Amino acid sequence: MTTLDDAIDRLAPRAFEVLARLVAEPSIVGQEQGAEEVLAGELDALGFAIDRFAIPADIVDDEAAGIAQGSYEGRYDIVAERGTGNRSLLINGHIDVVPADDATRWTSPPFEPTVRDGWMIGRGAGDMKGGFAAGLLAVRALDEVAPGWQRGTLRWVAAIEEESTGNGTLASGRAGHLADAALLLEPTDLEILLGGISLIWVGIELEGLAGHAEAAGESVNPILTALSVVEALRGFEAEMNRAHREGIDRDEAFGELAHPYNVNIGTFHAGDWASSVPPVARLQVRVGHPAAWTSEEALARVAAAVTAGTADVEWLVEHPPIIRMTGYRAERYLQDSTAPLVTAVADAHAEAHGARPALVTIGSTTDARFYLNQFGVPALAYGPRTRNMHGTDEAVELASIVECAKTVARFLQRWFDEGSGA
Amino acid sequence: MTTLDDAIDRLAPRAFEVLARLVAEPSIVGQEQGAEEVLAGELDALGFAIDRFAIPADIVDDEAAGIAQGSYEGRYDIVAERGTGNRSLLINGHIDVVPADDATRWTSPPFEPTVRDGWMIGRGAGDMKGGFAAGLLAVRALDEVAPGWQRGTLRWVAAIEEESTGNGTLASGRAGHLADAALLLEPTDLEILLGGISLIWVGIELEGLAGHAEAAGESVNPILTALSVVEALRGFEAEMNRAHREGIDRDEAFGELAHPYNVNIGTFHAGDWASSVPPVARLQVRVGHPAAWTSEEALARVAAAVTAGTADVEWLVEHPPIIRMTGYRAERYLQDSTAPLVTAVADAHAEAHGARPALVTIGSTTDARFYLNQFGVPALAYGPRTRNMHGTDEAVELASIVECAKTVARFLQRWFDEGSGA
Repeated sequence: MTTLDDAIDRLAPRAFEVLARLVAEPSIVGQEQGAEEVLAGELDALGFAIDRFAIPADIVDDEAAGIAQGSYEGRYDIVAERGTGNRSLLINGHIDVVPADDATRWTSPPFEPTVRDGWMIGRGAGDMKGGFAAGLLAVRALDEVAPGWQRGTLRWVAAIEEESTGNGTLASGRAGHLADAALLLEPTDLEILLGGISLIWVGIELEGLAGHAEAAGESVNPILTALSVVEALRGFEAEMNRAHREGIDRDEAFGELAHPYNVNIGTFHAGDWASSVPPVARLQVRVGHPAAWTSEEALARVAAAVTAGTADVEWLVEHPPIIRMTGYRAERYLQDSTAPLVTAVADAHAEAHGARPALVTIGSTTDARFYLNQFGVPALAYGPRTRNMHGTDEAVELASIVECAKTVARFLQRWFDEGSGA
Repeated sequence: MTTLDDAIDRLAPRAFEVLARLVAEPSIVGQEQGAEEVLAGELDALGFAIDRFAIPADIVDDEAAGIAQGSYEGRYDIVAERGTGNRSLLINGHIDVVPADDATRWTSPPFEPTVRDGWMIGRGAGDMKGGFAAGLLAVRALDEVAPGWQRGTLRWVAAIEEESTGNGTLASGRAGHLADAALLLEPTDLEILLGGISLIWVGIELEGLAGHAEAAGESVNPILTALSVVEALRGFEAEMNRAHREGIDRDEAFGELAHPYNVNIGTFHAGDWASSVPPVARLQVRVGHPAAWTSEEALARVAAAVTAGTADVEWLVEHPPIIRMTGYRAERYLQDSTAPLVTAVADAHAEAHGARPALVTIGSTTDARFYLNQFGVPALAYGPRTRNMHGTDEAVELASIVECAKTVARFLQRWFDEGSGA
């Protein structure tokens, strides 16, 4: 495969240039179109038929859907297809990125991709536009060195809202954009990611009694009452992970993780003036939880933990926090490690890189859950090395994009070879 | 004075209409101009010469100035003057209002003044546009029933930034816009407010280590480290007030207040995504403090309290919070209660309303501090009844505007009568 690897190495600069154009489009939730059109242009150039798949408004009624934050009006996935034949494969990625938070803390502006020491820095460079770059690079190289390699149907789904609901991938799957197997190009440090936990997003709104700082004694500052809510959440988190460590109803697929169920208070916002007591505090919390609970049960347990943990705060007893789901309603998922898809990707990695890749699970989720849980399609994630994902100075290692492409190209070729009975 | 009171009663609806126009202008910091021009129009109609007094940029270098949040470019006080003669009086008010926070919690939009049950609801209706309405009403009524009453110079200063720095009034005073005495039409529930405490605004910035919620264990969530900072601030507050109650270096001017030194965490902002660990948390804190400390000493004590209270949080020891002043550097002030100004206002109130008004101090500040501390001008605050000041559904009692005007008109007439030797 030296010819293939040579082609990948030679074409890599173009892949990095595409990646830079993708990163330069700040495709946070609701603003996905710019990045989608960059990707559509690349897929079109590779001969894919492009469908701008409009997310149906009623996806929110789907039993597997997350809670949408806004309208789906004018928003779409890119669904691309090339080739025909029974054998099929789907490459999935998400075009959305999380916001950059405080841009002044970045060493370069988050949506101005910058390469330093072999890493491209930028929001979404790692999670997961680098995966798109690797996938495009693999296909382009195969097309060049092995024309006719694709003996079947190759689909591409570039979904919105992986970072908040998963409704983009869910909707595309409901519409039949599926295949024999799905490869998600999420950043896995070139390991094979087989499973993720259940998790929900929970919004907590604490009512205060607003007023002047001078009369703070007659007011109720929700920043202060929130402290006991935060403590309750931390206790809830500790208890879930303690049970896991002690083997109580442990989900063995995540047995190697010491702390699979993170409760992350991602946002805390209250007040607009130092000398005013604010009327409300709002928290957004990401709650990983055991698979034994449905999303609704997990929410009820969060609410119960908050109620119990704040029982001595009279104001909160009289003005209970409003607690509701605000995004993910993600079910735990797990790809059987003995499936042909897993073997094929692992073999391809081993052939390209000389050692078998680790098979891992994670205390988080990916859109693979829909392929596995809703659609019965084998799915795994495999992709480049990233750092500071969701953090400041997020970056992807450019060399790992090339390495990823070398695995993916081998995997693709073998997948369709096998489809032809070769 | 029945004729005067009749005129005030008759002219009151017009004063309420002016008040509504003032409230409809959302004169939060940096956006003062609309409300200022409404007031300027009214003062112009009363024969005042209007000066749009540009705040000099170098006011921030004044030893008594607060820390400006933004530029003074294009921003001004309204300074108005009418009449001549040695005897003089200055009516001071502030045109700025604090923000409305969550407008959805108001029973009517905060900048759409609404009258219900005799109260006008709207941000700034009480603090302190109602005072302007009362002052205008008093002058207009006197002009009508007692032409020639003003035997001297009447100045009006409508200042910006009373709610954050006081630099508007400070700058006007430095430029010589002063008088024999100053009456501030702050909402005092028709009591005479003689003094206020020292206070500063403190910004606290907590650095975190941002990342993905999945790897929260490798990140540092500044929302969580902030908890110990908040606890430290609460301890600091409790200690100041404990000392006050126990008589340790007690400031007897505030001896009747059980809790003069409020530490108010007015804002807490961190994060933009539930599944991200935020890189930074920012708090804005209003710290009332004993007069024995300068602003700089108070800041140092806040910082020391935070350092001591977070000594067991390793991350904070290695990444100490950035703590700095962000607004007020307000010195305690106190008007001598035996001064002729106090007697004159109290007499006028007693004549209008049949009982002598309470003389009070407060655990807060007003721009009166500059007249007393920097300019040697007697000053007190007297104004309408308000509720929910700085809170949701702030309102001013319309009847109290009329009552206030009846006091102020009598006071003004007497002040200038005495000036003529009558």
